[in-house]
Amino acid sequence: MNSVFLTNPLFERVERARRRKHKIRETHITLAHGSGGRAMHDLVEGIFLEYFKNPMLDRLEDQAVFEVNGAKRMAFTTDSYVVDPIFFPGGDIGKLAVHGTVNDLAMSGARPLYLSAGFILEEGFPIDDLRRITASMQAAAEEASVQIVTGDTKVVQKGGADKIFINTSGIGVVETTANISSSNARPGDKVIVSGTIGDHGTTILIARGELELETDIESDSASLHFLVAEMLDEALSLGTPDAIRALRDPTRGGVATTLNEIAVSSDVYIEIREGLIPVREEVKGACEILGLDPLYVANEGKLIAIVSSEIADKLVERMQKNPNGIGACIIGEVKPQPQGIVSMTTGFGGTRIVDMLAGDQLPRIC
Amino acid sequence: MNSVFLTNPLFERVERARRRKHKIRETHITLAHGSGGRAMHDLVEGIFLEYFKNPMLDRLEDQAVFEVNGAKRMAFTTDSYVVDPIFFPGGDIGKLAVHGTVNDLAMSGARPLYLSAGFILEEGFPIDDLRRITASMQAAAEEASVQIVTGDTKVVQKGGADKIFINTSGIGVVETTANISSSNARPGDKVIVSGTIGDHGTTILIARGELELETDIESDSASLHFLVAEMLDEALSLGTPDAIRALRDPTRGGVATTLNEIAVSSDVYIEIREGLIPVREEVKGACEILGLDPLYVANEGKLIAIVSSEIADKLVERMQKNPNGIGACIIGEVKPQPQGIVSMTTGFGGTRIVDMLAGDQLPRIC
Repeated sequence: MNSVFLTNPLFERVERARRRKHKIRETHITLAHGSGGRAMHDLVEGIFLEYFKNPMLDRLEDQAVFEVNGAKRMAFTTDSYVVDPIFFPGGDIGKLAVHGTVNDLAMSGARPLYLSAGFILEEGFPIDDLRRITASMQAAAEEASVQIVTGDTKVVQKGGADKIFINTSGIGVVETTANISSSNARPGDKVIVSGTIGDHGTTILIARGELELETDIESDSASLHFLVAEMLDEALSLGTPDAIRALRDPTRGGVATTLNEIAVSSDVYIEIREGLIPVREEVKGACEILGLDPLYVANEGKLIAIVSSEIADKLVERMQKNPNGIGACIIGEVKPQPQGIVSMTTGFGGTRIVDMLAGDQLPRIC
Repeated sequence: MNSVFLTNPLFERVERARRRKHKIRETHITLAHGSGGRAMHDLVEGIFLEYFKNPMLDRLEDQAVFEVNGAKRMAFTTDSYVVDPIFFPGGDIGKLAVHGTVNDLAMSGARPLYLSAGFILEEGFPIDDLRRITASMQAAAEEASVQIVTGDTKVVQKGGADKIFINTSGIGVVETTANISSSNARPGDKVIVSGTIGDHGTTILIARGELELETDIESDSASLHFLVAEMLDEALSLGTPDAIRALRDPTRGGVATTLNEIAVSSDVYIEIREGLIPVREEVKGACEILGLDPLYVANEGKLIAIVSSEIADKLVERMQKNPNGIGACIIGEVKPQPQGIVSMTTGFGGTRIVDMLAGDQLPRIC
């Protein structure tokens, strides 16, 4: 079957699309440019990489890693949070801002140390809400053993912004010698997800209240660096420090988009199995009603790991002992060809291409 | 005269106000909370310092400085830019975002190394404007010898933000051994300003086009770390490495607010002389029409230095050789009493208290 699969004309079309130069056809910003998917990639590669050209940015990771005067490697990352609504089951914009930036550092194997907090507030924003958000940020920072050490506050006139936007940037120190990168996946590696997918994005959409759905779904928003530290420790203690090839948190664009990014960066083919992907029943149900595919829905407390097959099972066992990895499991594997492609074997034995998110399923999800 | 001055009841009232606990009386955010002045201080101290409590933030500097694993000291800072209009004579929001963050690093004596760039874009924003801003950021970064190494893009629906907001965070390395801090001003020190004041804020206000003023005033937006490096070099070569006590860039709230912050942090009295303060004739004229006091108007390419009197004259000479210090001059001095107060001797020989900015003269100035 695989050989038929390799000559599938659909594959060829996708591969051709991949090879085209990133081109921005639009003249104005659309919501899709912030989606995490194809349009955002085109914008980032067509404008930001074009002008800011430097090797660190070109790596297209979620963080920059560099040495400072021969000291240990440092990681540096930034994220702005514009989530709507600002309070939702399982979290709020402040908690999300801490978790998201901690996770971007963690995905390089870094131990997060310090965060900055930049607030853009709309005139008229309730100060009690700001207190609640600030307290929530501090609780999340304490839980993650990071400190918020520098900040900034801007206020814009009523209608100039929607309530509150928060930027958190973060600095961490990379203590592992492992070279973790989206470009390191190799044929034969296994694909691990740390738990159920789609929880955050589904929660936000339901919290907007546009649909009268009542569920118990909560955002999975969580800091993952303690989980990553245990994974690195496991790989080290098994004598295979380089067995963890790539780590990514599948936020905007979901698992599908993250896997596509890895497949493209590593020039590999990634095959996942629908039956192995953990999705809560409530999330599955809500996504059906909402017309969403959980594979494209944002997560804020999950990671994707590409790891050497020899340690995959042991690593999953270790992950399951961490509160943020209880649902960890293998969902697929890495193959050599066709490069840059992700596909999913469905329950009925069929195979479908899992492309990057096109358009914008869910604006302001984080 | 000084003894009469010290028992001035107005001074006592200001001192009492200073001693009161920072209290937020408002229930909702006002534009004044983003002004850089008194209301913003109350918000920062009443909420952010209250919850994020840690020694680095408590210092209330524009950047955090810390050691990472015994390596050289690092500086870390963040700023969001919401300036309106986004293009103005002498610059644009992108250039400002690079200069501002570079300067916050420079004011700790750090050499800026890496910046992050977080964009919040409004749906419908012209992509050509984004190109222009991005190119401008890169030009400013190159000129300042810093690299933009990590970024983020968010898009909010039309009306959810005003065109474009940019957060830049920055990392630098502190190579000087000098201990530069707003709390280090000592009686006998001189107050230096690096050039004319009020240029940026006045430019922005005129660029809004609400007044039909035609002038040649341009924003002074510039990176100041090369100037700071020369100042540190001068102090070192004069055998007085600790002679530069405090460095601050007087942005929101202007020179008046910055001097008040230093007076409070250092428990000193700062006396400036109106006749010594450099203000362009056009800025003076525009401020008169606009009802503004240049002392409270934002600068984006100027610094205030508090330095030991023994090197003040030599330092000014050295500063004047740098393109960003051509207009450097001494504008006042530091005295012991009354602590936490700034006053100005006017042209007519009178003295008036120069308090921190109250209310908001100019929203969205940076």
